[in-house]
Amino acid sequence: MKLATLNDGTRDGKLIIARRDGQAYVDASDIAPTLQSALDNWNDVEAKLLARSEKLNAGEIEHQSLDIAKLHSPLPRAYEWIDGSAYINHIVLVRKARGAEPPETLETDPLIYQGGSGTFLRPTQDIPMMNAEWGLDFEAEIAVVLDDTPAGTPKENALDHVRLLMLVNDVTLRNLIPAELKKNFGFFNSKPSTAFSPFAVTPDELGDAWQDGRIHLPLYSIYNGEQFGDPDAGPEMHFSFKDLITHIAKTRPFTAGTILGSGTISNDDRARGSSCLAEQRMLEKIDTGEFVTPFMSEGDTIEIYMLDKDGNNIFGTISQKVAKA
Amino acid sequence: MKLATLNDGTRDGKLIIARRDGQAYVDASDIAPTLQSALDNWNDVEAKLLARSEKLNAGEIEHQSLDIAKLHSPLPRAYEWIDGSAYINHIVLVRKARGAEPPETLETDPLIYQGGSGTFLRPTQDIPMMNAEWGLDFEAEIAVVLDDTPAGTPKENALDHVRLLMLVNDVTLRNLIPAELKKNFGFFNSKPSTAFSPFAVTPDELGDAWQDGRIHLPLYSIYNGEQFGDPDAGPEMHFSFKDLITHIAKTRPFTAGTILGSGTISNDDRARGSSCLAEQRMLEKIDTGEFVTPFMSEGDTIEIYMLDKDGNNIFGTISQKVAKA
Repeated sequence: MKLATLNDGTRDGKLIIARRDGQAYVDASDIAPTLQSALDNWNDVEAKLLARSEKLNAGEIEHQSLDIAKLHSPLPRAYEWIDGSAYINHIVLVRKARGAEPPETLETDPLIYQGGSGTFLRPTQDIPMMNAEWGLDFEAEIAVVLDDTPAGTPKENALDHVRLLMLVNDVTLRNLIPAELKKNFGFFNSKPSTAFSPFAVTPDELGDAWQDGRIHLPLYSIYNGEQFGDPDAGPEMHFSFKDLITHIAKTRPFTAGTILGSGTISNDDRARGSSCLAEQRMLEKIDTGEFVTPFMSEGDTIEIYMLDKDGNNIFGTISQKVAKA
Repeated sequence: MKLATLNDGTRDGKLIIARRDGQAYVDASDIAPTLQSALDNWNDVEAKLLARSEKLNAGEIEHQSLDIAKLHSPLPRAYEWIDGSAYINHIVLVRKARGAEPPETLETDPLIYQGGSGTFLRPTQDIPMMNAEWGLDFEAEIAVVLDDTPAGTPKENALDHVRLLMLVNDVTLRNLIPAELKKNFGFFNSKPSTAFSPFAVTPDELGDAWQDGRIHLPLYSIYNGEQFGDPDAGPEMHFSFKDLITHIAKTRPFTAGTILGSGTISNDDRARGSSCLAEQRMLEKIDTGEFVTPFMSEGDTIEIYMLDKDGNNIFGTISQKVAKA
């Protein structure tokens, strides 16, 4: 099932169900007015949503054509947005890029940061550029949306709490990071509003590609119309969502609708490209001694999507342009 | 006006208005079902809430007696919970306690961390102790609740975005901090669920004590029934809420209902005591070479409240006991 949120001018939008091909939708706001409300009452609404989704995909129900530009983020705002950094190749490269060492516990203790979750960007919304000196970058990632997840959730139950999956553009202001991390309290100003994919899908939409808390498919990043990366999100995800969920739930519970990201998808094989500019820049620096690719500037575009084995666009495309704020 | 949230078994509770003395309330859920909804629609509901509050305080409306134990956190979950560390005396002492230097930009660049906002504790809810070795501590603070706050909000407009004020117990697991901060991504497991005061009050309830983004009143922490601290929240708040709001809004906007905390209240004058155990322990270490006061254990109690000049309990009392999880 593919869920989405129509931007109807309200803060939290209106819940709709998208057809598998992403071209049509039916209203679902009579079942639950918003996606948060559906997640809050999942056990009561799941069967109803599923039944309507099946009718939509079978062509047995009246539907409307879907315009991605009219969608909000599936959750226009969420109670928590937590982002991991589960692809070790990314951590090593990005830390090199800012002259920092990877942490000693790189392979045993997941890196996690608490992100701002009150004002997400729509999947096709311009990325506001307030100051070109801040070093605007995209970061293509995957994320899960959790149901109520108790403190102390053990690894063997962790994936039972995954209700939906999405793609992420974790917009980052690279040049604000060093001074911010030096203060030792984590990211804040360096992480402006994040964007998510048009559709939040139930795990079954991924079929065999969803295995053991990893999505075994390439994630495409198209930068200014050209392919920039297609790394596989699966095998090199050092900490699976099982590990990440267990880690975050060590000391507190989470409410339904909590979003947990994977961190920037990255493969060791350079032929797969990158999911952010910082990595590409670091490779240039290693090879030539200089950073070549600049950070994003006004008019630059980024598209992020994932295709299943049959070439279907699972989550819809995040498609954003940088615009002066 | 004092707003509160009745724990009616739902996730977000029911909005009520408390009488100035905290002893009685009227339902306000016909004006806005929840506090978040009131904040989402403040311009439409403020006058109605205010009119009912005035009737309640004048004894002109039917009311019910208020039992603090039946209240949720004013926002049982929020879209963002951001905590500053605006009292420099606290930063210096706590960093000393863990053998760390204060950041170079201590007096010019506010320390801020993004907290988890999905599962707050009720004001009288037990603090769950999952593991005694984690070093459970309280932190008594003040906080503001913002309305929609645009990116780039200038200092001169910052306080216009303050809708409500609350007290905070920013529960902290001290012994998890060093390893976590070493990873350089900020706090996560070391900050379990936070508790807030029974009442969220409009700034006018503070009268002259609310000045220039600071509350000029002592904050009382009563630990195991004995006064532990009564530091003044005003003069030594190095960064006012004006500064903190401008700082957080540097690169992104905030939704109505965002909570922003001051950090642990701390005075240079030792006679004022402390608002957390870590500070007290550091003073012991400086004086005697040894930590004497242990962190919290099962059965320990903490009460946090603030009195106005006439002795009225402004926010109600946070009153929690540590209990095995």
